[in-house]
Amino acid sequence: MKTINIGLMGFGTVGTGVVRLLSEHAALLAHRVGTSLRLRRIADRDIESPRPVEVDPKILTTDPQQIIEDPSVDIVVELLGGITPTRELCLEALHRRKHLVTANKALLATHGLELFEAASKSRVDLGFEASVCGGIPIIRALREGLVANRITSIVGIVNGTCNYILTKMTQEGRSFQEILQEAQREGYAEADPSLDVDGIDSAHKLQILASIAYRSYVDLRSIYIEGIRAVDPSDIQYAKELGYRVKLLAIAKEVGGELEVRVHPALIPEDHLLASVGGVFNAVLIEGNAAGSLIFYGRGAGQMPTASAVVSDIVEIAQNIVHQRPSRPPHLPEITTVEVSLKEMDRLRTGYYLRVMAIDKPGVLSKVSGILGEHHISIASVIQKGRREQRTVPVVMMTHEAQEGDMRKALAEIDRLDMVTGRTVCLRVEGSHT
Amino acid sequence: MKTINIGLMGFGTVGTGVVRLLSEHAALLAHRVGTSLRLRRIADRDIESPRPVEVDPKILTTDPQQIIEDPSVDIVVELLGGITPTRELCLEALHRRKHLVTANKALLATHGLELFEAASKSRVDLGFEASVCGGIPIIRALREGLVANRITSIVGIVNGTCNYILTKMTQEGRSFQEILQEAQREGYAEADPSLDVDGIDSAHKLQILASIAYRSYVDLRSIYIEGIRAVDPSDIQYAKELGYRVKLLAIAKEVGGELEVRVHPALIPEDHLLASVGGVFNAVLIEGNAAGSLIFYGRGAGQMPTASAVVSDIVEIAQNIVHQRPSRPPHLPEITTVEVSLKEMDRLRTGYYLRVMAIDKPGVLSKVSGILGEHHISIASVIQKGRREQRTVPVVMMTHEAQEGDMRKALAEIDRLDMVTGRTVCLRVEGSHT
Repeated sequence: MKTINIGLMGFGTVGTGVVRLLSEHAALLAHRVGTSLRLRRIADRDIESPRPVEVDPKILTTDPQQIIEDPSVDIVVELLGGITPTRELCLEALHRRKHLVTANKALLATHGLELFEAASKSRVDLGFEASVCGGIPIIRALREGLVANRITSIVGIVNGTCNYILTKMTQEGRSFQEILQEAQREGYAEADPSLDVDGIDSAHKLQILASIAYRSYVDLRSIYIEGIRAVDPSDIQYAKELGYRVKLLAIAKEVGGELEVRVHPALIPEDHLLASVGGVFNAVLIEGNAAGSLIFYGRGAGQMPTASAVVSDIVEIAQNIVHQRPSRPPHLPEITTVEVSLKEMDRLRTGYYLRVMAIDKPGVLSKVSGILGEHHISIASVIQKGRREQRTVPVVMMTHEAQEGDMRKALAEIDRLDMVTGRTVCLRVEGSHT
Repeated sequence: MKTINIGLMGFGTVGTGVVRLLSEHAALLAHRVGTSLRLRRIADRDIESPRPVEVDPKILTTDPQQIIEDPSVDIVVELLGGITPTRELCLEALHRRKHLVTANKALLATHGLELFEAASKSRVDLGFEASVCGGIPIIRALREGLVANRITSIVGIVNGTCNYILTKMTQEGRSFQEILQEAQREGYAEADPSLDVDGIDSAHKLQILASIAYRSYVDLRSIYIEGIRAVDPSDIQYAKELGYRVKLLAIAKEVGGELEVRVHPALIPEDHLLASVGGVFNAVLIEGNAAGSLIFYGRGAGQMPTASAVVSDIVEIAQNIVHQRPSRPPHLPEITTVEVSLKEMDRLRTGYYLRVMAIDKPGVLSKVSGILGEHHISIASVIQKGRREQRTVPVVMMTHEAQEGDMRKALAEIDRLDMVTGRTVCLRVEGSHT
């Protein structure tokens, strides 16, 4: 049986993990695949620095084009990251009928359609298990395990950095900035943390999950994105007193034939299973109309978990090659046949947490609740924190389900009140029914 | 493209769910498979009772043999349950080169090897996603998603009935018998509950999971099994005071090249993620050497979750038929190539919870701890509940890690003490390191 040749583009942390798994588990993987997997070539800008894995120096190159042009390479593994020139390299690999495995969520979320089309045209596989939630086999679960389900919702904690920061803020009551700087020192956050803390990375993963679940290529630009920079420790504290935790959630939900896709911090009840997902862990709650509620939990990032997912894709594709199975039913038609209409954010219905900063004098609550009432928003509970007459105090409220557009209008009016001294904090509430 | 014909043996609860999914999601499934799935024939002893799904009465038969002998049937779905005559029917279906999908964990755990051999010989698929944890795609996750991992441990809450009973006992402080009877009235427990409450059903599922994870057919008889009948509400209460929950766990763990396979009630720390798995839900914690800790959570039983898993297997097999892919690499060689040696229970090392019932007089603790010490067991903490001189009181202890064989000997000695008035309760402790 022909050996399967692998070309690895990107010999960084995850790349090193992939090399380690391919070498340490060589016998096991060969047994699973039915033939051996050979690392044919590795491309990286830096091929000088020592890595904690042994590779034949002859297979190292600084030119990824050498992998793409090597006719013996069956599967290209892309771990370069970024969009340019990665996109071009991937497209060319696919055009040259090489199977592709990638962990690049940014690339898939922005240029996925093009890649799926190219893969479909060349009748090759495109594996991307590693692009969402690292070691958790969530793509397989959605695409295969839940194939008989209409997915009603996906609610995920899919960014480890944000979850680490929010968990620390909750446990220690310290500020976002302080924890972020600490996380950066400890290597849990990037030097430029915006992709993570501004919710963009979560949106990339949501784009991929929603596209598979709803078989419709969701445009990244249609996802509502709000990060965690503005989350204040006091709001985490008040949420805690009310029996909630604050988490950055990535949500895709079908409501009345329309799809909501949004990333934002949200309050979830403390007894909700996602509430106890702490630190860098990821978890995704999927509701299927047949399977019911499912949760997938694990390490969403890191060298070996991500490498584990990459190698699972390599094995699946290699099995297809060995057994001369055609590649899986192309993803593209699966993704574009069902049209879902996206729900505008203004029409979202959810519960809200509000913190109004107002001068402590009679009539404040009546004014604020009056404005809310005019916009069809009813209050479920109020906590007025402290009493400091004529000084600013926080008025914390939980509302019943209301419409986002109404809430925005009400907030604009509330913030214009003389007695309101700062911008009202507004956080959405999720998961009250689970 | 040829239609794929399905023969369904067993038109009970789950069978009805399968029929419903195949009909309600017909278009979606046809799209996924690449051709339509047709329910060719349904066999059940009872074809008279009305079901809440519509089927052509002409496809109903009381004779499962008609399905097996029908040359047009591609995939046989076995939802009859039981061992006889189900085993013979399944074997014959496989011999006749029909693909088989089954949810029958008892059959797989007792006669799996024979079935895998028959499937392998006939080069057909054998799908059994529905046999473990209902709607949770755990088989796929282990076999495919974690293919690059050495599995270090599997710890699962895999029996909904037991978890429901233990959850209720924890919440309400009532006895096993009382909750069991209530569960029977409410349909959460069978009239004959022994398969569930004696841990046998959990052992069946563990047998399947461990055989896949460790690629070695684990003999059901080698699994240590202890059910929940003897769990007393007082022990649940003391465990709670100590910061633990009591759960029935199914455990497969590789320790020093040996495999532990055991089902028993155990204390787990209250902040352990499995501790918050309540009611009829199932959850399995899998540790892989690359992917790290993963948890899969969901409905482990019930009509639609189980049907969801059955249909996911039907779809996978149907795709293989459509694309003329040979069946997956046969399971059998995968299962028998790696030999694992099973660890005898006496050599298990774990922490223990003990409740000694003893006359409240000076020297009891010193006697008991003396015996434990002689057997190399050291005490981590003690709670002496109540003080009733010269009357029996419970002495509750947590030990450090000790060896099961030592513990058994120590318990025999302790229970022979004059001052000890009843059999000492001994529960294992799990998950302190997660």
